[in-house]
Amino acid sequence: MDTERHVRHFQDELESLKTRLLEMGGLAEDRVRLAVRALVDRDPAIVERVLVSDHDINLLHIEIDHRCFTLLALHQPMAVDLRAIVAAVKINTDLERVGDLAINIAEAVARYLLHPPVKELIDIPRMAVIAQDMLRDSLDAFVRRDIALAQSVLDADDKLDTLKTIVFRELLTHMLRDPGTIEPGLDLILISRHLERIGDHATNVAEDVIFMVSARDVRHHQDDK
Amino acid sequence: MDTERHVRHFQDELESLKTRLLEMGGLAEDRVRLAVRALVDRDPAIVERVLVSDHDINLLHIEIDHRCFTLLALHQPMAVDLRAIVAAVKINTDLERVGDLAINIAEAVARYLLHPPVKELIDIPRMAVIAQDMLRDSLDAFVRRDIALAQSVLDADDKLDTLKTIVFRELLTHMLRDPGTIEPGLDLILISRHLERIGDHATNVAEDVIFMVSARDVRHHQDDK
Repeated sequence: MDTERHVRHFQDELESLKTRLLEMGGLAEDRVRLAVRALVDRDPAIVERVLVSDHDINLLHIEIDHRCFTLLALHQPMAVDLRAIVAAVKINTDLERVGDLAINIAEAVARYLLHPPVKELIDIPRMAVIAQDMLRDSLDAFVRRDIALAQSVLDADDKLDTLKTIVFRELLTHMLRDPGTIEPGLDLILISRHLERIGDHATNVAEDVIFMVSARDVRHHQDDK
Repeated sequence: MDTERHVRHFQDELESLKTRLLEMGGLAEDRVRLAVRALVDRDPAIVERVLVSDHDINLLHIEIDHRCFTLLALHQPMAVDLRAIVAAVKINTDLERVGDLAINIAEAVARYLLHPPVKELIDIPRMAVIAQDMLRDSLDAFVRRDIALAQSVLDADDKLDTLKTIVFRELLTHMLRDPGTIEPGLDLILISRHLERIGDHATNVAEDVIFMVSARDVRHHQDDK
């Protein structure tokens, strides 16, 4: 293969890799949305749908990993291309974990639905929207190599942390007042923590994007303060 | 550089990388041990030590990532060497998260110590020992390319899950009986989940080792059942 064709082939493969990652991100995001809708609509049928459907994410996870190895082995990329593929390996792992977390949420929802509702749900659906937006933005930032968008994902994580604390305090008050809410309250607390971890995965992706584009490591920026 | 020297240099660098990963694993494991000792000894001074000390792990995290990129860029490894370096990138991420989880445990311990003890602690220290063993074994398996040892880590994860469920049920009983134990009980539940997640990270490492050695993907083996 001559050099020019080799380069073109590599760029085509890199584009396919990005498309597959976006696809996987879309699946993971759908899974999270569905799990939280099951909670809001109190619908065990939706819980079931989330619990049985991780096969496609798992297949994509393996396929994307394989694509990354092939690109590294056959094309021996340098600089930003090398960083992009290593980022893709990490992002792939993060997305697979998001899929797992959607299942964890669905499991908690299944238990939650065995009890009467503890309270009207306001902040948990809000957390879910923020986490999904963070996920989508972090992947768009990867595909477009957009540092500003990646930075906005890092900023959004604070909102998620604040909401998690509010959810925790509110549920604790309910649980202290009425022991009948302890069990379902625990599951809502767990769900809010799963959503926070989904935000953490989006944060990981955003940090990988910043490193990929700028070769600047922002992961331990708090150490500099 | 002639080829033989190039190869020798690569193998030396790969050895250094492994040494640094073991070092990072040792730091992460120490951190977990310390956080759980703070809980068992009810010692806020130990909590403090865990909370202020993640700088060395963070520096190693960045250094190891840098070593991996350099090895990929300069030596363009193939087959098992390529898989070893990509595994190192992933393992590095897992170990850094274990360090973060030790901090999460210490934060929960700090809150827990504001209340009288809920119960005698038996299963949580046991979970900590299992999680630490899993971590150490998974890293030894990486360094020695030992599939059997990696497999034993996957098996140990079930013990951790069982203990987590026992801890949860026991604490729930306490919380239902005595609302004064709700707040500290919640923190013990969170601690047991952090330990379970440390086991999950060791599991990730073990799966990466199996893939590195055999090029066989065991991550979604449950799909085959």
